[in-house]
Amino acid sequence: MPKIVDHDQRRLELVDATWRIIARLGIEGATMREIAEEAGFANGALKPYFPTKDELLTSAFGHVFNRTNQRIATVTDGLSGVAALRAFCSEVLPLDEERVNEARIVIPFWQKALNDPDMAALHSRSMRLWHATIAGHAAAARAAGEIATPVGDAAVADHLLNMMLGAQIVAALSPDEHFSRDLAGQLDNYLRLLAA
Amino acid sequence: MPKIVDHDQRRLELVDATWRIIARLGIEGATMREIAEEAGFANGALKPYFPTKDELLTSAFGHVFNRTNQRIATVTDGLSGVAALRAFCSEVLPLDEERVNEARIVIPFWQKALNDPDMAALHSRSMRLWHATIAGHAAAARAAGEIATPVGDAAVADHLLNMMLGAQIVAALSPDEHFSRDLAGQLDNYLRLLAA
Repeated sequence: MPKIVDHDQRRLELVDATWRIIARLGIEGATMREIAEEAGFANGALKPYFPTKDELLTSAFGHVFNRTNQRIATVTDGLSGVAALRAFCSEVLPLDEERVNEARIVIPFWQKALNDPDMAALHSRSMRLWHATIAGHAAAARAAGEIATPVGDAAVADHLLNMMLGAQIVAALSPDEHFSRDLAGQLDNYLRLLAA
Repeated sequence: MPKIVDHDQRRLELVDATWRIIARLGIEGATMREIAEEAGFANGALKPYFPTKDELLTSAFGHVFNRTNQRIATVTDGLSGVAALRAFCSEVLPLDEERVNEARIVIPFWQKALNDPDMAALHSRSMRLWHATIAGHAAAARAAGEIATPVGDAAVADHLLNMMLGAQIVAALSPDEHFSRDLAGQLDNYLRLLAA
């Protein structure tokens, strides 16, 4: 019998290898050769799956985004209002090494997206989705009397989204700075502001 | 008499040309040749000033940071408390085309800094400086009774700094998104949270 190759599985292996290599070596050190080696592929065997490094990077970003969303779905399951808001944001914040590694992929992705309309569109779609979800949780929190501020739900989502984007940069670039030591505490402090 | 060359002036011209080219073409399109042409230099004449593109990029980031600080010094002159806080943050937020262009330089700088300890140190120093200044304005605002929240000054600086970092990404990557339309309004909303 011929060997059966699961192409989706192989793509996923490549994407996984890509983000490990980018996290370790940076986008410039992540050559197609390094990625092939990490994934256990022969050099050149990547091309049918991902003709260019940019396509691999876009897939790696999409993969990180999907995986984050799966974690969010798990941790927010059955929660609403401020509890859901806290769980959502805690899952996006780079609070452990895996998520700091993800931040190290997201920053090169942003840099590429500056001059790549498809990547920029993927970024925008992702952010729109998160903004809507956060604003929804904020509305539920307000309905439950957990949010007292007259500052609106969309404005709360603006704040949280920008803070979570900024936190990726702090965590990836200056992990030892005092203002990055307690990102979970920053989130708590912000939620306290909303309750007042 | 021999022609007198003002080397500091020439370095500044090159740095200016660098950030205009990066803003227009992206970091990958910004070849040493393009930058030399933009600055009116012969190709190859850059090398004595900046042997590598990374050194040029670091200088361009430093230049943008210094210029931002000069603008901040001007707009906060004579102000204190919430007025100083608002003026400081408004100057950092990418509220006009020049500052959106600056955001388009800062993002490639961050990406490079992921794997360059000198660039990462420059980023950390810059952020520490801003954090201290913001926390100082917050303390003065609190002393003047303008900030009522029990959330502390350093925590306020954490929030504002992360929001300003996040705003660079939003402005550079998805300028048409609803959550980026009114960055000044986001700042006002945050300051309202502090007053409550």
